[in-house]
Amino acid sequence: MRIRPFPVSDPASTAEDRLAGLRLPSIHPTTDAVLETGLRKRLRRSELPEGALGRLESLVLQLARIQSASPLPFDLLAFDSPQLVVFAADHGIADEGVSMFAQSATRQRVQQMLQGLAPTNAMADLQGFDLTVVDAGVATPLHTERGNKTRVPLQLRKIGYATRNMVLSPAMSVAQAVSAIHAGMDVVHHLPGNVVALGDVGVGSTSCAALLLSRLCGVPLADACGRGSGLDDAQLQNKLEKLFAAATRHRRATAPLDALAAMGGFEIAMMVGAMLQAAAERRVVLVDGFVAGAAALVARGLVPAVTDYLVFTHRSAEPGHRLLLIHLQAQPLLDMELRMGQGIGALMAWPLLLSAQRLLEH
Amino acid sequence: MRIRPFPVSDPASTAEDRLAGLRLPSIHPTTDAVLETGLRKRLRRSELPEGALGRLESLVLQLARIQSASPLPFDLLAFDSPQLVVFAADHGIADEGVSMFAQSATRQRVQQMLQGLAPTNAMADLQGFDLTVVDAGVATPLHTERGNKTRVPLQLRKIGYATRNMVLSPAMSVAQAVSAIHAGMDVVHHLPGNVVALGDVGVGSTSCAALLLSRLCGVPLADACGRGSGLDDAQLQNKLEKLFAAATRHRRATAPLDALAAMGGFEIAMMVGAMLQAAAERRVVLVDGFVAGAAALVARGLVPAVTDYLVFTHRSAEPGHRLLLIHLQAQPLLDMELRMGQGIGALMAWPLLLSAQRLLEH
Repeated sequence: MRIRPFPVSDPASTAEDRLAGLRLPSIHPTTDAVLETGLRKRLRRSELPEGALGRLESLVLQLARIQSASPLPFDLLAFDSPQLVVFAADHGIADEGVSMFAQSATRQRVQQMLQGLAPTNAMADLQGFDLTVVDAGVATPLHTERGNKTRVPLQLRKIGYATRNMVLSPAMSVAQAVSAIHAGMDVVHHLPGNVVALGDVGVGSTSCAALLLSRLCGVPLADACGRGSGLDDAQLQNKLEKLFAAATRHRRATAPLDALAAMGGFEIAMMVGAMLQAAAERRVVLVDGFVAGAAALVARGLVPAVTDYLVFTHRSAEPGHRLLLIHLQAQPLLDMELRMGQGIGALMAWPLLLSAQRLLEH
Repeated sequence: MRIRPFPVSDPASTAEDRLAGLRLPSIHPTTDAVLETGLRKRLRRSELPEGALGRLESLVLQLARIQSASPLPFDLLAFDSPQLVVFAADHGIADEGVSMFAQSATRQRVQQMLQGLAPTNAMADLQGFDLTVVDAGVATPLHTERGNKTRVPLQLRKIGYATRNMVLSPAMSVAQAVSAIHAGMDVVHHLPGNVVALGDVGVGSTSCAALLLSRLCGVPLADACGRGSGLDDAQLQNKLEKLFAAATRHRRATAPLDALAAMGGFEIAMMVGAMLQAAAERRVVLVDGFVAGAAALVARGLVPAVTDYLVFTHRSAEPGHRLLLIHLQAQPLLDMELRMGQGIGALMAWPLLLSAQRLLEH
């Protein structure tokens, strides 16, 4: 017998009806043909051949468009207090055996990060990023430790103790999704600087990313679904079956907010809010891996102009990530075949932005 | 009437005969299965999924193999005084209209670098590399300027005032090629540190690279030949015709040293020597673009173990570069579609080595 603790989304109630509660910030598209022409000239003053700097040139142009809001002529790129925010959450679908890891691994990884022992800490230190960890919905209580033990700030923004198992019910209610988006906006709003890198941690998150990619871009689920943290063939087949079941159950959740609530995660919803807020404040947003990419899809669905502010930092080993980037028409900076989130890829790519900055000012 | 100032290479004289004059350093292959097993374990101590660090893991392993010569157990990667050497030379084949630029552009770019005004200076400064410019064979006299004007050291190692036009004769004699290789070895030998990035500047150099790729790897010339600094269709057709003529004239130059002499350049020959010497001294060698890649092909032909020490930093926009990297079974760190040499790509990729270092020591 299948348990149905939650009804299938009501077809009569459209996404628009329920957007009422969602405050979307206003984001300005960054197109500026005059600026581009000027910059292209400037980049070529060294008598370099056309396109000498290749894709670094497009990066310079994107960054300049983001930073050229002032009425004064644009001069140089300026990066100030770069921040890395890692959103942590658990996923009810982990019960279905879609990951190599038990749900408890999420908490362990978060604790490691809070103690400054994770690879992310080392990389953030190397690249000069301040790290903030946000508990968006880890399955167990987390608390900021007393004394000097905690080297990394933890923000307690728990929407719930893991999402529900989306094979059986929507992962969260639309109200929870809206709360999570608002929380992500609030987190970014209170951080300093003009650069935000967004990462995530949570067992089962690539299942959400695959479902969102499939739903929002029409990618076949079999192409969107990958081995995550290293599933074998039988486990992959099981994951795919569970994702099919979830996708079928939530077949009516087609609008971005509905899809997010039915098949997303708390950390994904918070990253959506973080991206929207950062873009509204004209910050450069460094998008990490497949899961952060899925958040970008939802954010674009809510406010298309957000993509002008998103720098896709790397392509991971997940096959769905490649398709996601193609759908976003994004060329990632790195292609290192990473199999981890937590902002590592975004931090690795950061020096390319510094190169872009230096080549422009030289 | 075709001018033939030089005879076609004598078929009776084999490469071996003429290797006598060439001093090749001894290079130790770096394979070490015990080290690899230990390192893979160490990289996974954070309970990361297998292959979590993707291609960064292979980079860590390569760097560790290079640096693990001591009988003590290998501990950490240590990079010391990284050096960028840019070899400058002109090419007689530039007379055939194979480039968008006149030969004089080489000298201008070198002067710009010596004055600290080129993009390379800005990037070397950003990444903490010392820059040395070597005049391997620019067509006009270069001299170190007096006083404090010259911010960058220039080494005068001119083998000739540009190579000869290889459509009409071998680019250089085998003796010149040997001298250039020895000069490159000497340059590296007198530089400090354990990391050497090799770049190049010289109008017409992609013609040499295409010919060497075609000859040494059997790649059809039409696939190896690209638009270089931005040739249009007619100019590309002309370049291809000239390269066919050169390849036909030097059809007997099949051994690496013979091919280098007949169709290479002074800067390429010096990079060959620089790579061999650096590998012999167990330095990490950062290989820049298509032209430096062609030098790697020749170096590998002379001492195969050299490739263990070569880090291929990026893939440029030249179609031949992609094929060259495939033949070397090398996956470059970056794919930024750059259209310039001068070590820029190597400098851009350098922070990834620092990431590898930090992730290993964390």
